[in-house]
Amino acid sequence: MTTETTAIAETGVDEAAAAARSAFATTVASTAAERAAWLTAVADALDAARDELVPLADEESHLGTARLTGELARTTSQLRLFARAVVEGSYLEATIDHPDATTIPPTPDLRRMLRPLGPVAVFGASNFPFAFSVAGGDTASALATGCPVVVKGHSAHPRLSRRTAEVVAGALAAADAPDGTFGHVEGRAAGIALVQHPEIRAVGFTGSLHGGRALFDLASSRPDPIPFYGELSAVNPVLVTPAAVEARAAELAAGLAASFTLGVGQFCTNPGVVFVPAGSGFAELVAAEVGEATAPDAAAPMLTDGIASAFADGVAALAGHDDVRVVAGRAGNGSNAASAPGTGSPVVLATTAAAVIADPQALFAECFGPSTLVVEYASIEEALTAIRAVGGSLTATVHAEPGEDLADILAVLTEIAGRVLFAGWPTGVAVSWAQQHGGPWPATTTIHTSVGVTAMRRFLRPVAYQQAPDAALPAELREDNPLGIPRRVDGVLVVPGAEARPA
Amino acid sequence: MTTETTAIAETGVDEAAAAARSAFATTVASTAAERAAWLTAVADALDAARDELVPLADEESHLGTARLTGELARTTSQLRLFARAVVEGSYLEATIDHPDATTIPPTPDLRRMLRPLGPVAVFGASNFPFAFSVAGGDTASALATGCPVVVKGHSAHPRLSRRTAEVVAGALAAADAPDGTFGHVEGRAAGIALVQHPEIRAVGFTGSLHGGRALFDLASSRPDPIPFYGELSAVNPVLVTPAAVEARAAELAAGLAASFTLGVGQFCTNPGVVFVPAGSGFAELVAAEVGEATAPDAAAPMLTDGIASAFADGVAALAGHDDVRVVAGRAGNGSNAASAPGTGSPVVLATTAAAVIADPQALFAECFGPSTLVVEYASIEEALTAIRAVGGSLTATVHAEPGEDLADILAVLTEIAGRVLFAGWPTGVAVSWAQQHGGPWPATTTIHTSVGVTAMRRFLRPVAYQQAPDAALPAELREDNPLGIPRRVDGVLVVPGAEARPA
Repeated sequence: MTTETTAIAETGVDEAAAAARSAFATTVASTAAERAAWLTAVADALDAARDELVPLADEESHLGTARLTGELARTTSQLRLFARAVVEGSYLEATIDHPDATTIPPTPDLRRMLRPLGPVAVFGASNFPFAFSVAGGDTASALATGCPVVVKGHSAHPRLSRRTAEVVAGALAAADAPDGTFGHVEGRAAGIALVQHPEIRAVGFTGSLHGGRALFDLASSRPDPIPFYGELSAVNPVLVTPAAVEARAAELAAGLAASFTLGVGQFCTNPGVVFVPAGSGFAELVAAEVGEATAPDAAAPMLTDGIASAFADGVAALAGHDDVRVVAGRAGNGSNAASAPGTGSPVVLATTAAAVIADPQALFAECFGPSTLVVEYASIEEALTAIRAVGGSLTATVHAEPGEDLADILAVLTEIAGRVLFAGWPTGVAVSWAQQHGGPWPATTTIHTSVGVTAMRRFLRPVAYQQAPDAALPAELREDNPLGIPRRVDGVLVVPGAEARPA
Repeated sequence: MTTETTAIAETGVDEAAAAARSAFATTVASTAAERAAWLTAVADALDAARDELVPLADEESHLGTARLTGELARTTSQLRLFARAVVEGSYLEATIDHPDATTIPPTPDLRRMLRPLGPVAVFGASNFPFAFSVAGGDTASALATGCPVVVKGHSAHPRLSRRTAEVVAGALAAADAPDGTFGHVEGRAAGIALVQHPEIRAVGFTGSLHGGRALFDLASSRPDPIPFYGELSAVNPVLVTPAAVEARAAELAAGLAASFTLGVGQFCTNPGVVFVPAGSGFAELVAAEVGEATAPDAAAPMLTDGIASAFADGVAALAGHDDVRVVAGRAGNGSNAASAPGTGSPVVLATTAAAVIADPQALFAECFGPSTLVVEYASIEEALTAIRAVGGSLTATVHAEPGEDLADILAVLTEIAGRVLFAGWPTGVAVSWAQQHGGPWPATTTIHTSVGVTAMRRFLRPVAYQQAPDAALPAELREDNPLGIPRRVDGVLVVPGAEARPA
């Protein structure tokens, strides 16, 4: 591994981007089977390195061995899901129109499929050192499409990033992916240079609103703007109906407490604001659930000192608002961080929907860490007005009782969020075909997802071939469909083998 | 019609955007059948108004009755194609994952589909007063998804825009679309305000690189950036192999002459640069084809005086380049416009691939009008280097003989363009399922198409429903699939009725 370590450590942005561009000449023409083999090789290598990687991740992130072991398994299972999806082939949207002289204008032979964009820059996130970092969803989905990747490792886990990069690069090389298919750079300046580099064709980013907006602006102001897929900020509102709080307040309070404190609250899907009926005493129930965890000596280490101090500041700012009361936890100025530097402990705050409607910007600032704001509403209508003021979010959750009419509630929740939950809590994001991780600004910057199979669409662009000789076409578009992938032919979706399958 | 005329003329941006937002509360929940009926009603009304609209379009655009009649038919057939696609339903990407406890993490019941973004601003283009204007592809694809539309009419055909807007608004009202589903505003300031308006969620634009870039920058720098789907500029390179020019030079020259002069060269898919073997005499063959059309009294009126004078200036700049020779037409300083104000006539220029490689910016500036630049190459390799220097384009064409190995050529053409042609010429864009109209910057600003069925994807965003009661789900995601649309269920694409259909 010495050679690889050296190669990766010494590689700068220009070198990594040029190597990625050079690799793209090969990866753009790779077969689905080849790409599936690359992804599987990376997954196998990461699994094999688990006993080395998980302790390293725990040293740098303090997230605990159990959580990190699960996160690594999620990461490798994500790579394998993309491998299956690549072979299945429908993500290419292969479409064939045979010539038709009766249309206006006449249709020539036209065949369309998606093709990889080119080298992709991926920014690792601090809070998921495996699943949203070097070998996370952005990297997996980009490699799956045939786009080389240059990762900018996160400074919160530099040693893990380097070691993961070595494992990924080694696995790709062993699986015969071309040199330059994967690169790794470090540091803020490298990240900025990467977003502006002429050879980079798209960016995947998970991080803060502030940093993400700055990089989005750089990507958009290039001479040739490129797509910037950023997942930036979300408060993930939860609405509890009067019937639900009446039927199962204690269960809901326990569920909320477990969700907002999970991983010391460092989830982008953390339930940050929870709407409950006024007078329900719900905030106090949640406070009772987290009671012991608020003790100074129970404070848990956060990802970085900077995140812990930003959390303390954010909580203090909220607590200092005239209309906010502290129901549990330490939220005086700087007091949450005071237990020990770099730690955080649960805080439950409460306010009213009327206050939120009057001052949404102050009350809905994302506070990254283990806090939640319980918002007491006078009516569902008032709660919905306040939720609209939240703006875009990754998730929105409703807890209701069977038989309640949810039409008005759903109209608002689907408008502001990318994933709407009817049970459970938003932390925990399944990696599957139907997943959607993204939502209206500032949740994400675009109309695509960063988790789940359709995340591949971000790194693809359509190309149509007009009147091409069959031999000149990619296999996916040849008349006899040699790969047997689903295709739309003359407007009709055709799934080979579907005749034998029940609908 | 008096009431409608007044309503549209007096409506400002704020009013139109607010009305669109209000309509969205209804259109977001519209059924596929309702949207199909709206589109069909608009198509029928436009067809019924043909004898009024075509002469009006001709007065303002000078494009001729035959072309404009065909363009209107294309426009209404486009609306009807979207109506069929909406009912077919696969554009929603409906995906269902049943719960699966064996995945990491476990998968809950997750159901995902695409939903409309909200009010869309559409900028009419000057060169297609029907097909890319008030009721063109952007409007049709946005309405198809359930997004209300506010059109900013193009100043090149104000009376046609207003009248078309009245017909569209009247047809939608008669088909029971909610008030505000369609609006129309005019003027540069209105366009700028529209792109920045808080209620507008996306923009469709076809126009110049300069104007498009300015609006793209506005959309990207909003407090909440929105997608800007711009089709801006393309030179549409054509590569003729030595074997092809040897086999059929005269036929190719005639084809090129017809294509680059079509509609006085005012097509975004105009073949602006054509690579031919050095010494083939191809430029002179093209010159002979357009010979008579270059006479001063043969000059044809262009869309606007501004376009004609920009064309004359562009041609003069190219002709003034040390390495460019004028093979046919009048290309001295201002001389093309000199025939009569607002007119243009064909110009054939020639240069070498070496000159292009040395100075691509100067030689590949898009020159909107009836000119083409014949580029003589010493080798295919040299031609491909020059084509790479062209950058992104809507189309790229190769003319080769049967049996030639096109791998190297295709690698370059697919990299720079969204549509690759193997026969014919790029002017003429079929509206179909497989069409792709878009390409790398500056051809378009995003990874989507503005023509063809998949243009709808631009105005949609995914929403996933987690553990939703069946009754709370949109019909498209209910377990029993009441609308019978294609869906992906547990990773498998299921097309109802496909059992009976040959693969």
